[in-house]
Amino acid sequence: MTDPLVRDALRAFVAEREWAQFHTPENLAKSISIEAAELLECFQWNADADTDAVKEELADVLTYCLLLADRLGVDPDQIVLDKLELTRTKYPADRARGRSTKYDAL
Amino acid sequence: MTDPLVRDALRAFVAEREWAQFHTPENLAKSISIEAAELLECFQWNADADTDAVKEELADVLTYCLLLADRLGVDPDQIVLDKLELTRTKYPADRARGRSTKYDAL
Amino acid sequence: MTDPLVRDALRAFVAEREWAQFHTPENLAKSISIEAAELLECFQWNADADTDAVKEELADVLTYCLLLADRLGVDPDQIVLDKLELTRTKYPADRARGRSTKYDAL
Amino acid sequence: MTDPLVRDALRAFVAEREWAQFHTPENLAKSISIEAAELLECFQWNADADTDAVKEELADVLTYCLLLADRLGVDPDQIVLDKLELTRTKYPADRARGRSTKYDAL
Repeated sequence: MTDPLVRDALRAFVAEREWAQFHTPENLAKSISIEAAELLECFQWNADADTDAVKEELADVLTYCLLLADRLGVDPDQIVLDKLELTRTKYPADRARGRSTKYDAL
Repeated sequence: MTDPLVRDALRAFVAEREWAQFHTPENLAKSISIEAAELLECFQWNADADTDAVKEELADVLTYCLLLADRLGVDPDQIVLDKLELTRTKYPADRARGRSTKYDAL
Repeated sequence: MTDPLVRDALRAFVAEREWAQFHTPENLAKSISIEAAELLECFQWNADADTDAVKEELADVLTYCLLLADRLGVDPDQIVLDKLELTRTKYPADRARGRSTKYDAL
Repeated sequence: MTDPLVRDALRAFVAEREWAQFHTPENLAKSISIEAAELLECFQWNADADTDAVKEELADVLTYCLLLADRLGVDPDQIVLDKLELTRTKYPADRARGRSTKYDAL
């Protein structure tokens, strides 16, 4: 179960600023893509990146993910575990071991 | 604190398939962007989207975020809380209330 | 056929700065995603955006697209026309008219 | 000047399918990000990618870029050249030569 501490801290933060009005699922989805690209930018020209910058950008992506999960009324940990079960069947360990091949080409 | 249950389930899943070799920080950052766009695709032509599809795509983004956090040796909840403190100073409640304006234009 | 003027201007610009070394196809693909998100950011919280900002960000996406096309030795106009023919068969006008449905659900 | 052939081919294609209604600047911006990520996916786990797949995904990004340029009433070649002049001042050749450093750290 996701720690309610972070969820509650985010709710309070958003409420204080009356920002919930902007947090439609679509706007949150756009925000996740925007922040994901800022994370990617740490690696734009090379594989090594400044670790502090990576952590900060990752935090931004996670923040919007948690806001969207809350908006949808789902537990982020639970949907990750649910999806893992689906992925388990798409990528049986004996076939997928050591291979980055997409499931439809396994 | 993030629930170790999900982190451990992901570690086991990756280990069974010998996939850690592909999970460089850069590849994980690319994956987060790729999945973020699949989430965005639920809203490509309209603001309303199939909720089950949104949950599944959000789960994919979160999964890669958790993998990257683990790879960097950070607690996802902690970096979100740390970043929230930074954002608190950039967006003082009295100035930011009800406004979606970026901090450098507040 | 794409106007060689722009292609040549970009080649000269890159050569002057000895930047071709950074322009691997992968780095250019990352750059296209990064710039695409900066374009998307113009619309982060609303459907209306500052037109000048949109034009500038669109120019950045196009620039990296043209650099990648050149790197791959393809004519950008030609690959667009080639893809259009493929899309024509996936979305026959009589079935696709007025519908944003993806081809596999038509 | 951009070849009107491609612009006109796209206009005809969109008109036949009555798709202009979906092509708001925001939806086109979302589409560009979505296609950019499909291009990035060619490189998800490695630096080498299937060239045909890369060309096809690049064509999709370019297509939406051209649709957006047309929607905004701008010539794609012209905005690229205009932006190049701006970038020229941000990255003077003598300072930027051989360096991938962002302009604010030059």
